[in-house]
Amino acid sequence: MAGSRDAGVLPAGELAAFGSALEVLRRTFAYPHRGRPATGFGLYASVLDIGEGRGLAISTDGVGTKLLVAQELGRYDTVGIDCVAMNANDIACVGAEPIAMVDYVALEDATTDQLRQLAVGLAEGARRAHISIPGGETAQVPEMLHASTAGDAFDLVGTCVGLVDLDRIVTGSRVAPGDALVGFASTGIHSNGLTLARRVLHDRAGLAYDQHVEDFGRTLGEELLEPTAIYVDLAMRLLAEADVRALFHITGDGLLNLRRAEAPIGFDLEFMPAPGAVFELIQRVGELDAAEMYRVFNMGVGFCAVVPESDVARALDSGRGLGIPGWRLGHAAASPDRRVRVLPLGIESAGERFAALG
Amino acid sequence: MAGSRDAGVLPAGELAAFGSALEVLRRTFAYPHRGRPATGFGLYASVLDIGEGRGLAISTDGVGTKLLVAQELGRYDTVGIDCVAMNANDIACVGAEPIAMVDYVALEDATTDQLRQLAVGLAEGARRAHISIPGGETAQVPEMLHASTAGDAFDLVGTCVGLVDLDRIVTGSRVAPGDALVGFASTGIHSNGLTLARRVLHDRAGLAYDQHVEDFGRTLGEELLEPTAIYVDLAMRLLAEADVRALFHITGDGLLNLRRAEAPIGFDLEFMPAPGAVFELIQRVGELDAAEMYRVFNMGVGFCAVVPESDVARALDSGRGLGIPGWRLGHAAASPDRRVRVLPLGIESAGERFAALG
Repeated sequence: MAGSRDAGVLPAGELAAFGSALEVLRRTFAYPHRGRPATGFGLYASVLDIGEGRGLAISTDGVGTKLLVAQELGRYDTVGIDCVAMNANDIACVGAEPIAMVDYVALEDATTDQLRQLAVGLAEGARRAHISIPGGETAQVPEMLHASTAGDAFDLVGTCVGLVDLDRIVTGSRVAPGDALVGFASTGIHSNGLTLARRVLHDRAGLAYDQHVEDFGRTLGEELLEPTAIYVDLAMRLLAEADVRALFHITGDGLLNLRRAEAPIGFDLEFMPAPGAVFELIQRVGELDAAEMYRVFNMGVGFCAVVPESDVARALDSGRGLGIPGWRLGHAAASPDRRVRVLPLGIESAGERFAALG
Repeated sequence: MAGSRDAGVLPAGELAAFGSALEVLRRTFAYPHRGRPATGFGLYASVLDIGEGRGLAISTDGVGTKLLVAQELGRYDTVGIDCVAMNANDIACVGAEPIAMVDYVALEDATTDQLRQLAVGLAEGARRAHISIPGGETAQVPEMLHASTAGDAFDLVGTCVGLVDLDRIVTGSRVAPGDALVGFASTGIHSNGLTLARRVLHDRAGLAYDQHVEDFGRTLGEELLEPTAIYVDLAMRLLAEADVRALFHITGDGLLNLRRAEAPIGFDLEFMPAPGAVFELIQRVGELDAAEMYRVFNMGVGFCAVVPESDVARALDSGRGLGIPGWRLGHAAASPDRRVRVLPLGIESAGERFAALG
C-alpha cells in the first residue's frame, strides 16, 4: 500500500489516511525470519536483504486509467507494455536489474480475445525489459468492475522483482549539491495524467478517440495509448558507465518525483526540452497553467539521473547509444525541504504542488 | 496471468483464451539475462534461478469477491489477512519460505478509514506469515470500480516472494503411488467460493449479512469474513519434520487442486472430515450436490501434504503442535489423467469438475 509511493506528494486528506496505514505496515519490517527490508518506505522499489550481500528489489504498480482509453478503442495489445514499464522502470531506479514480473488481470469476461491481447503487450514489454513473466493471476470478477461499455472492464497490475548488491542500492543518499541532473525523453504521456488528459481532450474538447488529430499525425487514441518507455537498458548502461547517484522514473506528480532522493537536496532546472504535442494541446485546450501541467505530466522527460558534472557527457552518450534523447537539465542544490525549481517555466515546488517562483 | 493458476480446471471458453495467452507469455522465459524461471507454468508459485543454487519464489493473488462481503458490512480489517494467506500459502506450496509481500489496493476514495483498516489486516497477516510488507501501491480509480454502495468499491491484491534452494523445490514430481495424503483443517470458507456462497445464503435464502445464524453462532457476515488460515508455520514444520513430496493449498476448485502435482498421479481419498456448518448450510439451502460443493469449496480441508506412509504420524504431529487438526485422507495412485476420487462422497474428478463415481 505504501513504500514505492511518494507519500509526500499526496493530497492532504489522502495523506492522512495513507500515513496512518503506513504506520501500521511499518511494524511488519520486523516480522520476517530472513529477507528483512534493507530500505525504508519512499523509494521506487523496496529492497530485501536476502543474505550474502545480495538484495531483492520489489515494486508493484498498475496501469490506471490508461486502461479506460484501451477499453474505448477495444485495443488491448499495448497496455501490457505500460504495465511492464511502470514496474521495471521503478525497479531500475534503485539500481537493480529487473528479472521477472507477475501480472494480475481482473476482468469481466475471460472468454474474449482481451486476455490474449493483454498477453501480447505483456510479452513485448518483457522482451524490452529483459524479464520473464513466469506467473500471474486472472480473476473474473464482473461484480467488482465498472466500464463505460459493459463486458470490457478490466484492471491490469504488475509486480516486478530485480537483483541488486546491497552495497550498490541507489537511494539518492549520495547526491551532493552541484551534481548534474540529466533528463531523458519520454514517449508521450506514458501512464500518468490520463484522467486529466481524457477530461480535457475527450470530455471538454469533444475529440473522439478514433478521431485524427493534426497535431499528433494520428488519432487521439493512438497518441494516448503510445506505450510508456522502458528505461531498463538505459539505467543499466548508466550504472555501468557513470557514477549514478540517483535515478528518477518521472511518473504521476511529474518532476515532483525529483524530491524522492534520500539526501536533503533539491534541484534547480535551467533547461527543459519542448514537451511535445500532446502536452501542448492539453495545456492549450484545458487552459492549464505550467504549475498544473508539471504536477500531473512528465512533460517530455520520462527518466532522470543524477551524476557528477564530470559524468554528464557519459550519461548523455548512454542515452544516445540507445536512441534516447537526453539533456543536462540542471543541478542539485542544498535544500532541506527538497525544493524543485523549474526556472524556464518560472515554477517551484511548494509542498505537494508547483507554484509560481517566489 | 498464468502460472500460479491451474489452467486444467478452468471452464472451456476461459481455457481457450487462457491457453492462447499462456503460449504468448511462455516466450518470455528466455528473455532475462539472469534470474530465469526454474519452473514451468502450473505450480502454486514460480521459482526463479537467482544463482548460487538459490531460488526466488513469486506468486500473486487477490481476495476476490470476499471483498464484497467486507463492503456490505463496512468492515475492512480482516481481508488483509486473507490477502496474505492467499499468497503466502501459495509460496509455501513450492517449499519456499515467504519473506515479503507487496499489496495493490484500488479504491474509490482514499481519504476514508478503509485504507487504515486494510493495513491493519495486512499487518496481522504479515505477522502470522512472518513476512514484511515493505511497499505497495494505492490507486484511486473510481471510474474503474463498482460496488453496491457507492464510494466503498475496492480491490485488494498481493504479490508474495519467498526463498527456496533450487534442489529443495517441491513440485510434486516425487510423489509415488502409495504415498499418503494428509489434510489439514480450514477455518471455514477461506477466500474461494464466495460468489456461490453469497448467491445461496444472501440472495436465495434471504439472510442479511448482519443476521445471526444459529448454525454459525454468529452473523452470516462474521462467518463469511472469517480469515483464511495461514499455513506457513505448518508448511515449514512439515518440510523440517517429514519427507514432503507435495503441498497443496486448497483454494478455488477445491480438491481438484490435488491434480497440480507434477507426477502423473491421482489420489484416492478414503476419509473426509465433517466439512463444517457453513458448507452444510450452503449445500442444504442451495440444494447442491457433493460434486458441485467439492468443486467450489475447500469443504473443511484447507491444506494438504503428501508424505511417505511412514511419515504420516510426524505430519499429523506437525499440525497438532500448531493447533491445526489433520487427518490421513487417503493415498496417491498411479493415474495419467490425475484422477481424484473422494470415496466417502462417491465422486471423482472428470476433467474440470467432479462427477459421480464411475
